[in-house]
Amino acid sequence: MTAHRNNQSSFSEISPSEFFYRNRDLAGFSNPAKALYTATRELVENSLDACESTEILPKISVRIRYREEERHEPDPRTYVLTVKDNGHGIEPRQAPNAFGRVFYGSKYRLRQARGMFGMGGTMAILYGQITTSKPVTITTSTDGREFHTFRLLIDIQNNKPIILSKSTKRGVGSSGTSVELLLHGDIFRASAKIRDYFRQTALVTPYAEITFIDPQGRLWYFPQTTATVPKVPRETKPHPHGFDFEAMRRLLKHTDESSFPKLLMNEFHRVGKQTARNFLRFAKFDLRTDPRTVSNEETVRLVEAMHRFDGFLPPDSNCLSPLGTEILKSGIVNELKPEFYSIAIRPPSAYSGYPFIVEVALAYGGKTIGEGVRLYRFANRIPLLYDEASDVAGMVVNDLLDRRAYNIPREAPLAVITHVCSTKIPYKSVGKEFLAERPELERELKNGLRETLRQLKSYLSRKGSIEAVLRRKNIYAKYLPLIAKFSQALSGAKSPPRYQQLIKDFEDERVITVEQIANAKKKSEGKIE
Amino acid sequence: MTAHRNNQSSFSEISPSEFFYRNRDLAGFSNPAKALYTATRELVENSLDACESTEILPKISVRIRYREEERHEPDPRTYVLTVKDNGHGIEPRQAPNAFGRVFYGSKYRLRQARGMFGMGGTMAILYGQITTSKPVTITTSTDGREFHTFRLLIDIQNNKPIILSKSTKRGVGSSGTSVELLLHGDIFRASAKIRDYFRQTALVTPYAEITFIDPQGRLWYFPQTTATVPKVPRETKPHPHGFDFEAMRRLLKHTDESSFPKLLMNEFHRVGKQTARNFLRFAKFDLRTDPRTVSNEETVRLVEAMHRFDGFLPPDSNCLSPLGTEILKSGIVNELKPEFYSIAIRPPSAYSGYPFIVEVALAYGGKTIGEGVRLYRFANRIPLLYDEASDVAGMVVNDLLDRRAYNIPREAPLAVITHVCSTKIPYKSVGKEFLAERPELERELKNGLRETLRQLKSYLSRKGSIEAVLRRKNIYAKYLPLIAKFSQALSGAKSPPRYQQLIKDFEDERVITVEQIANAKKKSEGKIE
Repeated sequence: MTAHRNNQSSFSEISPSEFFYRNRDLAGFSNPAKALYTATRELVENSLDACESTEILPKISVRIRYREEERHEPDPRTYVLTVKDNGHGIEPRQAPNAFGRVFYGSKYRLRQARGMFGMGGTMAILYGQITTSKPVTITTSTDGREFHTFRLLIDIQNNKPIILSKSTKRGVGSSGTSVELLLHGDIFRASAKIRDYFRQTALVTPYAEITFIDPQGRLWYFPQTTATVPKVPRETKPHPHGFDFEAMRRLLKHTDESSFPKLLMNEFHRVGKQTARNFLRFAKFDLRTDPRTVSNEETVRLVEAMHRFDGFLPPDSNCLSPLGTEILKSGIVNELKPEFYSIAIRPPSAYSGYPFIVEVALAYGGKTIGEGVRLYRFANRIPLLYDEASDVAGMVVNDLLDRRAYNIPREAPLAVITHVCSTKIPYKSVGKEFLAERPELERELKNGLRETLRQLKSYLSRKGSIEAVLRRKNIYAKYLPLIAKFSQALSGAKSPPRYQQLIKDFEDERVITVEQIANAKKKSEGKIE
Repeated sequence: MTAHRNNQSSFSEISPSEFFYRNRDLAGFSNPAKALYTATRELVENSLDACESTEILPKISVRIRYREEERHEPDPRTYVLTVKDNGHGIEPRQAPNAFGRVFYGSKYRLRQARGMFGMGGTMAILYGQITTSKPVTITTSTDGREFHTFRLLIDIQNNKPIILSKSTKRGVGSSGTSVELLLHGDIFRASAKIRDYFRQTALVTPYAEITFIDPQGRLWYFPQTTATVPKVPRETKPHPHGFDFEAMRRLLKHTDESSFPKLLMNEFHRVGKQTARNFLRFAKFDLRTDPRTVSNEETVRLVEAMHRFDGFLPPDSNCLSPLGTEILKSGIVNELKPEFYSIAIRPPSAYSGYPFIVEVALAYGGKTIGEGVRLYRFANRIPLLYDEASDVAGMVVNDLLDRRAYNIPREAPLAVITHVCSTKIPYKSVGKEFLAERPELERELKNGLRETLRQLKSYLSRKGSIEAVLRRKNIYAKYLPLIAKFSQALSGAKSPPRYQQLIKDFEDERVITVEQIANAKKKSEGKIE
């Protein structure tokens, strides 16, 4: 019975840091290559968020170095990763917890942001610590005058930061944060992904200036190409359709509001006076009910009615910051140089009460795009580079392009770009690599892709008929002079018939010129702008 | 500057329950169909673990019912899920925390088990609670005489159970646990996956009896077909090669041992006296150093030496419980009825100090296996049904079968079975759907698959030459009598030449019979048994 008793006595509780320390694969730290990639990415994303949330044009510099003594060691080895930004900085009293504590952060709000779980930076630091035993150094300033530097370790068992040293310097500069950590990495296997990551990030953040210096000292510079910072995403209230029992129970427990309609108007997204009243009538609640007196059973009835009531306005996308046609267009034209492209920006939709917008773009032909379909996935402006086949966008693209409906051959040179922005991205892993098959998301991706595919199909069929016409024109142009010559010879006439006009007529009436194609293209894009 | 201040003041900490409540996609609860599947699976896996860890032949019964009042509603709707086992039961003082607290459990040990994160059961209950607002009912007995029943809710904000009621009954029966919960589900979209799950579970646990009754009252019965319970996986100590700074720091901080060699012998996997001494010499530590006096810098040196020292014994697979040839064979023969199969059981290996064993089986042809490659993935006896393309086994299979080296056409009817067992499975998501690309794992899967593919290749080439020989024999058998007849007619002989012997000779010498194939097959399997 030893095993039995063993089993009974061994229950234990572990801290969130401990959990992720034991299960680092969950957060994208599976091996030295993936870890170097994920650490870089998480810190860069924190930096971009720290700039954009306060409308600062981001200037991010990233460096990965060898330690001098390991320069000639083979990979995997220790690297020094430094990420520096000009964002809003972090108040010194928050900094140690923000970086040294799992499940502690500023991202637990209904707002579009790259960060979602409030743990990416901490995981990078934790991974560095367990693989090199070295502390992280963080310097941050909220005003560009006082610069606070911390050296931290994480107390993993208790999920809290250990401050090794702390100092403040005065100076003149900009606000911002810089993080420097040592970690076990493998640049040989990671460098292609890291460069892809920067390239694709640049594709959707042309307003940022990003500098990356790799261990060999090579510099990758992505200049800022537009001064338009995207609209700052706004924090929003929950939509009634996604509200669950737990959330309602909490709301009713903590509210001070005695008017039921007012409570609904204050706490929910796009619920006005009339909607609140209509809903309460639908749910069979007296308008004068004090929400603080609602019983448990009534709470259940209330939430069930919320899910059924179809009088709520759809979520407002004003809180979201999609890429928009301009950014997509400039990214596609500059990076992919296609023969044809089309863009579909879907109307806002929602899953579980979270508003989202899907943008799909499609680029065809040209010299840069290779044969076959290449998918570029983005979520809240983050490029997603791993696990495409498990991503809802990957599934949709595979599914739709498999069908014959669009007449597009498998080996057509095609790039598909998908961007999902939302107050909450339904990632399937803490490593933020791919999105769950939420049905609403699937539907919007499908519709967006269909829209762009239809445009491509019509472009290709126009191009097909143009090519047929050009071929016919060539035949006329080749034979008409000969026929004219023979006719002249046979008839003994002095001059051949005026066939030139025939060719010209044909041209005027039937031939679509390259300019016409361009115009037609502009027109078809116009529809969706 | 409002946004700026907003951003600063909004740091907050959330509980682990709260984190997974907000991010349920991470744990496999993305939509009502997936949630019903995941909840069923997590509870069944807990049940199987509760039996196997104490060598009880598992009897598991699972039922999914409609609520009577929702019988005619469309999906998604509320379902009642009940999972009952005859396992070791849970001590009543542990039960509320075991089910009502995230990051609390009995799985945080170095032992092969289906459960890995200690949160599957709690997540199922949490999901049920937030989608139906109903409590879970748990009945458990450790002795078959006292049966303790709890009705629980989870206090999500504080990550602790709320006990609504608690009662004890005396009775006569077996030990075990039964869990009944209500949850929002979609059986229409989930039922194929749920049945697949049970079918594949039965494939690798023929010693379990599993009964599943679906909402329409249909019963799926998977009888126990062998009385051999697999060896109970044993808890093990960490291997020095996977030990990190954090773990070493903790070990040295908490130890009472003053002898360095003894500490190493007691705390590490397969470290004997001689190995301990050799290692300490290699690491340049005096054998008489008191480990409690080791400084931080020395700790770093110690761990770095541990990773470099190649005198440690490889991890012992005795703590693991692979499927073994018998179970694989019976599963394959009964379920897939192939024309040919081969099995490769790889020698134990380790990643980050965790021992693991990879088993690969390959089944070819027959009436059950369809065209193309189908992959069945298992990890610690759990069938993995989602996200195959992101799984290291999926990648390996894709990669190897793509090559021409094995001469196996794409449309060959092939089933590949992979099983990884380990004290720690490197899952990439909390939902336990796929394994990370740990290089050691990839290597063993590749080698295993290569082994089975070579056998298939040689079987197919034997079969090919047999078929050629048979074709030739047919030609001889067809034409020799005619030639004999013509010769007789031409020569005027009384009887035709005795060609029968010619055919027979040919048969004796050249033709490989079906029995010979079977023998050759046995021999080739013999090598790997």
